[in-house]
Amino acid sequence: VVNQAARLRRLEDADAIRNLLASYGLLADSGASTELALLWTEYGEYDVGGYGTAKGRDAIAALIESETHQQLLQAGCAHILSPHVIEVVDERATAAGYSVVWRYNEGAMEPWRVSWNTWELVRQRSQWFVQRRINRPISMSIGHKNDLFMATLSQSTDRRSPG
Amino acid sequence: VVNQAARLRRLEDADAIRNLLASYGLLADSGASTELALLWTEYGEYDVGGYGTAKGRDAIAALIESETHQQLLQAGCAHILSPHVIEVVDERATAAGYSVVWRYNEGAMEPWRVSWNTWELVRQRSQWFVQRRINRPISMSIGHKNDLFMATLSQSTDRRSPG
Amino acid sequence: VVNQAARLRRLEDADAIRNLLASYGLLADSGASTELALLWTEYGEYDVGGYGTAKGRDAIAALIESETHQQLLQAGCAHILSPHVIEVVDERATAAGYSVVWRYNEGAMEPWRVSWNTWELVRQRSQWFVQRRINRPISMSIGHKNDLFMATLSQSTDRRSPG
Repeated sequence: VVNQAARLRRLEDADAIRNLLASYGLLADSGASTELALLWTEYGEYDVGGYGTAKGRDAIAALIESETHQQLLQAGCAHILSPHVIEVVDERATAAGYSVVWRYNEGAMEPWRVSWNTWELVRQRSQWFVQRRINRPISMSIGHKNDLFMATLSQSTDRRSPG
Repeated sequence: VVNQAARLRRLEDADAIRNLLASYGLLADSGASTELALLWTEYGEYDVGGYGTAKGRDAIAALIESETHQQLLQAGCAHILSPHVIEVVDERATAAGYSVVWRYNEGAMEPWRVSWNTWELVRQRSQWFVQRRINRPISMSIGHKNDLFMATLSQSTDRRSPG
Repeated sequence: VVNQAARLRRLEDADAIRNLLASYGLLADSGASTELALLWTEYGEYDVGGYGTAKGRDAIAALIESETHQQLLQAGCAHILSPHVIEVVDERATAAGYSVVWRYNEGAMEPWRVSWNTWELVRQRSQWFVQRRINRPISMSIGHKNDLFMATLSQSTDRRSPG
């Protein structure tokens, strides 16, 4: 039963991380800068391709309050994250997947930014937080997949022996 | 072990709701109006931004049989739902996320409608059903996020104390 | 507790399949042909609408090494899979959902291909592998939903009695 408890916990962790990732877009599109920043740890980082790295919650909240993001909100936008590969090891986890930011423009929705993303997460007192998110628009990322991206993939694939 | 049983049940509930949400698009794009309506409770509601509120399964099936939807099916369409934030509390649940309806047009796929959605779900005799879905295209939703949308977010975020 | 172990296993299976599906796009966009082919069983099949059926891992790896795919990688691309309906029965599973392939073109991302997909999966020595994936672009699929697509849907819906 002890082993079952650990397996149950891992599934709950993956479930909590899935909810965290899904809530990012809802918070970003609501302009909820404080709540969004609380998805990160106190010293968490958000490295946004083309916009530098925000360090700490105040800096992350400032991204949402920035003119670029406020213009998106004014136009009408949707930050949609894809299903991610999620790997949990004890109180740490990694995730990798895509995001599409839609922007309303002249009567139609246009794909403003399509990116790949890697996330490092930590569990602190039963809550999962983002320690670091790296976001790279596809147009910037040819040949530049980062180490975490590749590591998350190999965690998923290394364990696969020919069947 | 009793506690583990409850935690297991909650994970199974989240899993069942994820399948329900993913099946919506497949049923809509198959024109399976009766099966789609059975995702809702007998008195379930589907409030579709710009098209009013369908109440009860016959009215919901009629949406799929409507000229608007049949024209989408004729053209070729894909109703793709994003990963949702899912919160289960006993036999009730809420979900919030995005949907993109793609439409084939002159040799290319175009994003016909991008929306945010909130769902209220209930478990009846071991099955999850939709009690109410609210759908709002992004272009209609500036500054009009609904209460459930915000409530689902705060369920996800209120529990987060600074880490 | 025995029953709980089986339920836990089924949830872990669904979780592993979700990771497998999410990793497909990351591997495809990294050009990782060998690792991608290892998602399939030794005699697995990948029936790609408009491109025939690749049988076995060498043939599946060759799809990623093909000129069509290499041109996508050169341009910049993102293979994004939607949340899927996943049904696990012992050591077999089915999944059904959508995929969107984005391609960078003249300063913007364009939806190059939007498809529905069905997957048959098997568990071999604790790992899940794809036995068969069928992919059909929406423009080819009007009135041609396949049997597995409909079967996966009815597994999700047949069990639903009027609530």
